[in-house]
Amino acid sequence: MNTEVQTLLTSGVTLTDAALERLLPASTTEPHSIHRAMRHSVFAGGKRLRPILCMEAARMVAATGQLPPGAAELGAAIEMAHTYSLIHDDLPALDNDDLRRGKPTCHVAYGEAIAILAGDALQNLAFQVLADLPAPPATIVAILRDFALSIGTGVGAPTAITPGMIGGQVVDIESEGIHPTAELVERIHRAKTGALITTSIVTGGLLGLAHLPTEPGAPGPGSGTRVSTNLNHPDLIARLRTFGENAGLAFQIVDDILDMTQTSAELGKTAGKDTAAIKATWPAVYGIEQSQKDAASLIADAFAALAPFGPAATPLKSLAQYLVDRTH
Amino acid sequence: MNTEVQTLLTSGVTLTDAALERLLPASTTEPHSIHRAMRHSVFAGGKRLRPILCMEAARMVAATGQLPPGAAELGAAIEMAHTYSLIHDDLPALDNDDLRRGKPTCHVAYGEAIAILAGDALQNLAFQVLADLPAPPATIVAILRDFALSIGTGVGAPTAITPGMIGGQVVDIESEGIHPTAELVERIHRAKTGALITTSIVTGGLLGLAHLPTEPGAPGPGSGTRVSTNLNHPDLIARLRTFGENAGLAFQIVDDILDMTQTSAELGKTAGKDTAAIKATWPAVYGIEQSQKDAASLIADAFAALAPFGPAATPLKSLAQYLVDRTH
Repeated sequence: MNTEVQTLLTSGVTLTDAALERLLPASTTEPHSIHRAMRHSVFAGGKRLRPILCMEAARMVAATGQLPPGAAELGAAIEMAHTYSLIHDDLPALDNDDLRRGKPTCHVAYGEAIAILAGDALQNLAFQVLADLPAPPATIVAILRDFALSIGTGVGAPTAITPGMIGGQVVDIESEGIHPTAELVERIHRAKTGALITTSIVTGGLLGLAHLPTEPGAPGPGSGTRVSTNLNHPDLIARLRTFGENAGLAFQIVDDILDMTQTSAELGKTAGKDTAAIKATWPAVYGIEQSQKDAASLIADAFAALAPFGPAATPLKSLAQYLVDRTH
Repeated sequence: MNTEVQTLLTSGVTLTDAALERLLPASTTEPHSIHRAMRHSVFAGGKRLRPILCMEAARMVAATGQLPPGAAELGAAIEMAHTYSLIHDDLPALDNDDLRRGKPTCHVAYGEAIAILAGDALQNLAFQVLADLPAPPATIVAILRDFALSIGTGVGAPTAITPGMIGGQVVDIESEGIHPTAELVERIHRAKTGALITTSIVTGGLLGLAHLPTEPGAPGPGSGTRVSTNLNHPDLIARLRTFGENAGLAFQIVDDILDMTQTSAELGKTAGKDTAAIKATWPAVYGIEQSQKDAASLIADAFAALAPFGPAATPLKSLAQYLVDRTH
């Protein structure tokens, strides 16, 4: 890992953790048990990859070199949603995991009832944080829409939707024991992992747009053409979405590979579970070598989407490269 | 029950159910199981009291006699939040209820994993619906803030909060088996039931304000002084909040009384559970007769808060009266 990425990751964790510390109720606040349970899982040593991607997308779009106001809070909201999904995934009725990042899972530490409610409360708090972002109301509503669509059952018409985070989880549960096809695995991965990573980047971009220096005579912040690239607003968001979708899928493929090749101690969670349960994973369909090639190819596509941003895209691209090069 | 209330309830159910039908993914939409589970619980015969209170608050504030655009959708979002809380409450790890409104609870019909995720998805969809309300972004953000604060662990500074819906649920769980004090019961009731009822009315009012006829020269919708009462915006919302808090507490007291005096068949759920579990209820502290007096007194306070609205408040007041007069 190069020094630049190491710095991004280290400062990103610090910024995210400080925002989470500000936004989560104190563990001494009543009712104690749920606030302790929320903090137990939120501060269990997560790498904060989603908030860091969110903050760097916001910084790139705002084009000032600085993090726009509210970027750390938005990242914290995304981390809360991620943590809620892990708490509920780990429950006995779902994946029944006792260990997460080397620590007891929420229901092991606090009991099932509190774990269910702590997950609920973290989803709730994520949305609550959006309402207080220092951004124009129209930006907050756009962020709310993309975020909610991404972490729900899916996006689209009531009769045909692309699964979101919860939808992906359901497809994953329902396909256990079924021989995984390439189509099924891609569908689960794009929904279960990809949707949250994509909205991290898209909502970061929406926040960045609200703090964009506009051309003279433009009607107001967020409405102008991006000075440095001449991308209009929808094009810019579409490019961030493409970047997020490709990087998100690559991330999950690498996760699948690591699950097969690493020990539990290296991963901080039970390794080999996916194989044991005949789960839908990329290497189960394509083998490890092809999976590695696919991850690299997806990252190349992700990079291409950011081409118009020029050197300002370097941090996001370095992070994406790290996602596929990591070893745990 | 008088004819006016009967009409309000009947037309309110029709409007709410139509909005829910439009907003929920079809049961034929993949992944099927979760969408079927969401619909199973949402369309299990709820009385739609919260959406009806929300719509009537919006109508009263908008002062045109008509429902403002989006009122039924906002009511549907509130009903989704209510349903999600019931699905999770009924789980084996929490209240372990098999029967709700005379039908099998979600986890009995679809299994625990899908019930947990269906609850998650309904909370998510409730927030998603807010993003598309036909109202100015500033109104949507104000609704988002009040709604999220009300249904979370609580409202206030990180070190001292008034419990919201989830917070009330936690206090309720933690106080099982403890001899209930008056203070504890009031705290649980105000949070677990009162907070959602209050936000139904407050957010309805916020939506109504966005569609308010403004005085000549006022800068835009939602910013003017209310023509018919001369209440300014914060006073108006404060009065709706007082109405909601009092009516919400009265509603829960009556629920406690009915649980002690009705059979399971009359209630459509297991009667007498509260007594059996030494739960914190109003009659357990004050006895049934005093509880009835307290409910009546709270409704009188709720009515007083609406005095400046004059005859336009009649529907909301009739509904509040119905909440304490009902027999199931």
